Amino acid sequence: MSSAPAPFTADDYRARMERAAATAAEAGLAGVLVAPGPDLVWLTGYQPTATTERLTLLVLAAGQDPVLVVPTLEAPDAARAAGASALTLRDWTDGKDPYAVTAPLLDVSGRFGVSDNAWAMHLLGFQQTLPDTSYVSLTQALPMLRAVKDDAELERLAAAGAAADAAYEEIQKVSFAGRRETDVAADLADLLLRFGHSQVDFTVVGSGPNGANPHHEAGDRVIERGDMVVLDFGGLLHGYGSDTSRTVHVGEPTAEEQRVHDVVREAQAAGCAAVRPGAACQDIDRAARDVITEFGYGEYFIHRTGHGIGVTTHEPPYMIEGEEQPLVPGMCFSVEPGIYLPGRFGVRIEDIVTVTEEGGRRLNATAREMAIVD
Amino acid sequence: MSSAPAPFTADDYRARMERAAATAAEAGLAGVLVAPGPDLVWLTGYQPTATTERLTLLVLAAGQDPVLVVPTLEAPDAARAAGASALTLRDWTDGKDPYAVTAPLLDVSGRFGVSDNAWAMHLLGFQQTLPDTSYVSLTQALPMLRAVKDDAELERLAAAGAAADAAYEEIQKVSFAGRRETDVAADLADLLLRFGHSQVDFTVVGSGPNGANPHHEAGDRVIERGDMVVLDFGGLLHGYGSDTSRTVHVGEPTAEEQRVHDVVREAQAAGCAAVRPGAACQDIDRAARDVITEFGYGEYFIHRTGHGIGVTTHEPPYMIEGEEQPLVPGMCFSVEPGIYLPGRFGVRIEDIVTVTEEGGRRLNATAREMAIVD
Repeated sequence: MSSAPAPFTADDYRARMERAAATAAEAGLAGVLVAPGPDLVWLTGYQPTATTERLTLLVLAAGQDPVLVVPTLEAPDAARAAGASALTLRDWTDGKDPYAVTAPLLDVSGRFGVSDNAWAMHLLGFQQTLPDTSYVSLTQALPMLRAVKDDAELERLAAAGAAADAAYEEIQKVSFAGRRETDVAADLADLLLRFGHSQVDFTVVGSGPNGANPHHEAGDRVIERGDMVVLDFGGLLHGYGSDTSRTVHVGEPTAEEQRVHDVVREAQAAGCAAVRPGAACQDIDRAARDVITEFGYGEYFIHRTGHGIGVTTHEPPYMIEGEEQPLVPGMCFSVEPGIYLPGRFGVRIEDIVTVTEEGGRRLNATAREMAIVD
Repeated sequence: MSSAPAPFTADDYRARMERAAATAAEAGLAGVLVAPGPDLVWLTGYQPTATTERLTLLVLAAGQDPVLVVPTLEAPDAARAAGASALTLRDWTDGKDPYAVTAPLLDVSGRFGVSDNAWAMHLLGFQQTLPDTSYVSLTQALPMLRAVKDDAELERLAAAGAAADAAYEEIQKVSFAGRRETDVAADLADLLLRFGHSQVDFTVVGSGPNGANPHHEAGDRVIERGDMVVLDFGGLLHGYGSDTSRTVHVGEPTAEEQRVHDVVREAQAAGCAAVRPGAACQDIDRAARDVITEFGYGEYFIHRTGHGIGVTTHEPPYMIEGEEQPLVPGMCFSVEPGIYLPGRFGVRIEDIVTVTEEGGRRLNATAREMAIVD
């Protein structure tokens, strides 16, 4: 699609770690504890080859340099991470107590933000070793830490979106009728990789009644002429996510199918149109949901309208009732209303949208009208 | 390799859940909270297509039937799990507080075991919602819950070991010299799949100096004549794990390489020979480590001697100094000492061993002598 962007440097990671530590201090936290996962990738560029019961943990605390605690086994890999020169490695060997090794880095009565997906076992280890510390999840304490993307990140998200769009253009040319959902899903995965993705995270192909289960991935069902087919696919390209959905039809739709698709398309357009700096996340959900409710399908829209995207395909901010977080330029998230008629069919349409001063800008540009496929 | 074993039934899962609840009660726990991962697979047969921030949790508590709390989106998938008819599904919808939905199932002042890999965010959610509850990781509270395998599990582990062995026999026939580690790793992955694995978890190819990093997977390094090459590979077959290591040499080894390999082989044999009911886990580590120390390489054996294996390739019991857990017939674990000479080469030899009344029985049977490859 396009040439690879310049890799993030140790300076980039240093700046992110400094920002995280400063944001944590402003929120009254003594520091941030980051386990392997998207937060660690974003802060350091480090991703262990596997997440095991052995503790790997980045400690960011005010007034001290970042320290990455790693099992000795992992130290050589960690030392090669792009952000390694911006932090100090402290390794611990099998048989040692990793919480005791880490404890001297922590304020013994401090309150710490901990990455959502840190293992409960490790949190319990710290609670036991330092009984006067307290903890709060990063999503609760610093939900917007990774939410506002800078230009280098937006460039990557746009490239991922363009690659997903290219995959969608191509998938409309394959045969649907007579093939299994898993066959079309495999085609989609191949296309995402061909257009530059390094990793495919999901390739939903929900045909006929399977489309009415929003979490259906792809199964053995043979797609038939007359089916609605929900396609929802994404992964990572240059470390940033894509996630888009289109609902196609095998042959001509019925009037009802066309109507449901039209309602979802209108709802998705309303959600995107509501995006502007200062709007609350829940306003996006309401804008999309109101359209669906107005047409009488409210009870069949059984999930939130969207989720953030960045180094992972699922992260804050969430476009959901009750989320009052105001939108800020640089935030990126999905707008993906759907209608799911149990036992019959489903429709979902999804674009990634970024907030600009002028409003929402879609990072997916393929036609949202119902495509007719063979 | 062999015909597929009969799938586990809802009755099998019911028995496991009853055993877990009873074991928890004996340990003074009010119940067990199980997040997606190997514990949940073992207890219910359910594996969500993705683990997200949405709470999915099995609640096992004395005097009440098992309840699986799931996001509404996941309910159709969960209802199809093999163990679904042995439990009650309770779904919660986006926007609801999943901890409040789950709280009525829990003793408000109880102590609960929580699966190691449950997200810290969820543990914090329960600690906040029910401040008088307390928690302990399942590995700490019930470390041996999944450790003793029954005959149906042993059959699967043996089949996985035999398939890994078949892959090792074949990999010795491929070209090593002049190809990248990643090429040989891809061959290994193909072989594991060809011999029946449904999932490849790791294919370590550590050539020359890369072999001295026990956690190196496979990289761009071109393997050369004269290299030692550590091969360590495994995955899942019929839902149970394989994990075996052999260290091969490209062309003839030097006397030193042969000596180091001989020491590791002797250490590995000593570790396996120490396996018998009633021996402590640390005895296996000591038996292997003593040999390596005796030959002067003690400081270069930088990891524990082994780990349990079952529905995952890494689980209790751990063969490590300080682990006094006695071995029980049916336990399965790796015995995998190694010597790692920084910047030069590494050697590791690994078999899965199961405890029988008569002592250890290896589930890997390929030659442990250093194979010479091209």
